[in-house]
Amino acid sequence: MRVQRLAIIGVGLIGGSFSLKLKQLGLVDEVVGYGRNIENLEKALQLGVIDRFESKLHDAVKDADLVVLAVPLSAIAPIYAEMAQGLKPGAVVTDVGSAKSRVVAEVEEALGFQPVCFVPGHPIAGREKSGVEAAEADLYVDHRVILTPQDYTQHEAVNLVESLWQAVGAKVSRMTARYHDEVFAATSHLPHMLAFALVDMLNDHPELGNVFQYTAGGFRDFTRIASSDATMWRDIALQNSTAIVYWLSAYQAELAKLADMIEKQQSDRLYDLFVKAKSARDQHIVNKQ
Amino acid sequence: MRVQRLAIIGVGLIGGSFSLKLKQLGLVDEVVGYGRNIENLEKALQLGVIDRFESKLHDAVKDADLVVLAVPLSAIAPIYAEMAQGLKPGAVVTDVGSAKSRVVAEVEEALGFQPVCFVPGHPIAGREKSGVEAAEADLYVDHRVILTPQDYTQHEAVNLVESLWQAVGAKVSRMTARYHDEVFAATSHLPHMLAFALVDMLNDHPELGNVFQYTAGGFRDFTRIASSDATMWRDIALQNSTAIVYWLSAYQAELAKLADMIEKQQSDRLYDLFVKAKSARDQHIVNKQ
Repeated sequence: MRVQRLAIIGVGLIGGSFSLKLKQLGLVDEVVGYGRNIENLEKALQLGVIDRFESKLHDAVKDADLVVLAVPLSAIAPIYAEMAQGLKPGAVVTDVGSAKSRVVAEVEEALGFQPVCFVPGHPIAGREKSGVEAAEADLYVDHRVILTPQDYTQHEAVNLVESLWQAVGAKVSRMTARYHDEVFAATSHLPHMLAFALVDMLNDHPELGNVFQYTAGGFRDFTRIASSDATMWRDIALQNSTAIVYWLSAYQAELAKLADMIEKQQSDRLYDLFVKAKSARDQHIVNKQ
Repeated sequence: MRVQRLAIIGVGLIGGSFSLKLKQLGLVDEVVGYGRNIENLEKALQLGVIDRFESKLHDAVKDADLVVLAVPLSAIAPIYAEMAQGLKPGAVVTDVGSAKSRVVAEVEEALGFQPVCFVPGHPIAGREKSGVEAAEADLYVDHRVILTPQDYTQHEAVNLVESLWQAVGAKVSRMTARYHDEVFAATSHLPHMLAFALVDMLNDHPELGNVFQYTAGGFRDFTRIASSDATMWRDIALQNSTAIVYWLSAYQAELAKLADMIEKQQSDRLYDLFVKAKSARDQHIVNKQ
């Protein structure tokens, strides 16, 4: 699973941490960076995240054995199409986007053929920090990475990407893009929408004034994900729209049920719901790192 | 603002931390504890949170200058009524409940008169831990405490309670019970309902299986408040039902707006909403402790 030349397109926290650890392990000979921000690339060079960078995409991916597209979701297919002619035959391409089905369809459409060496991926790593300065070799230790190969994806390509993620410490799961998008719509995209919506609703409320001044740790934690990058989340909302709209609608029904219990003062049903939710969370979440 | 005898009814994190700091500061001569769990009271005694405890409510409040009712919301009025005959004239009573209007009404009704020495209070302190073992003298430093005196409440009573909270390090705000209940329905009760509802909806999903295994730090923080005490939150939901139902409904409208933007792929409007929410949160929340 040794990689001679690795190209990182979009050198930030996600691609940078992957590269750092592979270099540390001696699993890659040379890492080439590419991005729109030269200053950022120079910083990546200084930090040892990349070995050199190129100002043209074709030069960056030339002779690369593996290309990691660590760019916003909406940029994946256009960049893939732009670099496709410059890839060496058999070069493996993977991405790190948080939604998968539409990206695959967009890449297929942009290329005009099924990309057998494209391994769609999604590392589940915290993103409260971002940028290459935040990159750290151990970011992925004990974190999950999801791969969603298509039926046509080459097994060797999937195996290479999987073994590299495992080498940097991640627990890799394979699933269909569709299942991925449903699960992450529910567990990640929906909570982000809920947090953005809550802060948006409470911001400068006409009657109550600035209510944020009365919030404490619970609100701070609940809304932490509303401080996430707006471009990234706009792309996710647009790309995984069907599943997100489905879950938003299911959640509204859940809220209607809860509001009805509260309105009818159904003490026992409320207690049951809270106890079950608390126990599910305590069981499944608290003891995870 | 010296207190000769302080009675803590319900000796846990909230009442215990208040007592510890007052004792440390030498602002109270004797603290008497009362509760249903003798083991807990013995632990409080060992920890120096109280000086003695009584097994009868009347004995616990006898000759107390200040009584702190640190019990679940639904227990406040019944306990107040039960102890009222045993209070010495002029004894000040305060509570620590997270909703205020209905408690005041219930106390008035249970007593049959307006309790002029009752100062309704609400310390905003983290509650991920609970129990007297978690009590610490500095719990309230830089935390807010809200007091919601009625028109009939004696000024001296409010001043005493306010100055004691300030002495233990809290920033005290006075507001009407109605405003308190609206603001905390929006900033605390609503987020708790949202977190309980999300975990309830995702728990053992029939099609997707256990989705919690795919969650990461964002979900853990978002749902932390769903691990809160079920009895406490049932009481809050029932007691502040009107405001909570109002905000649940406003929030459902906000979600409908967001779902519509996503369905219609309104890229710019989504970006605007996310950017504004992020900037509001970054401005108001992140830099608070």
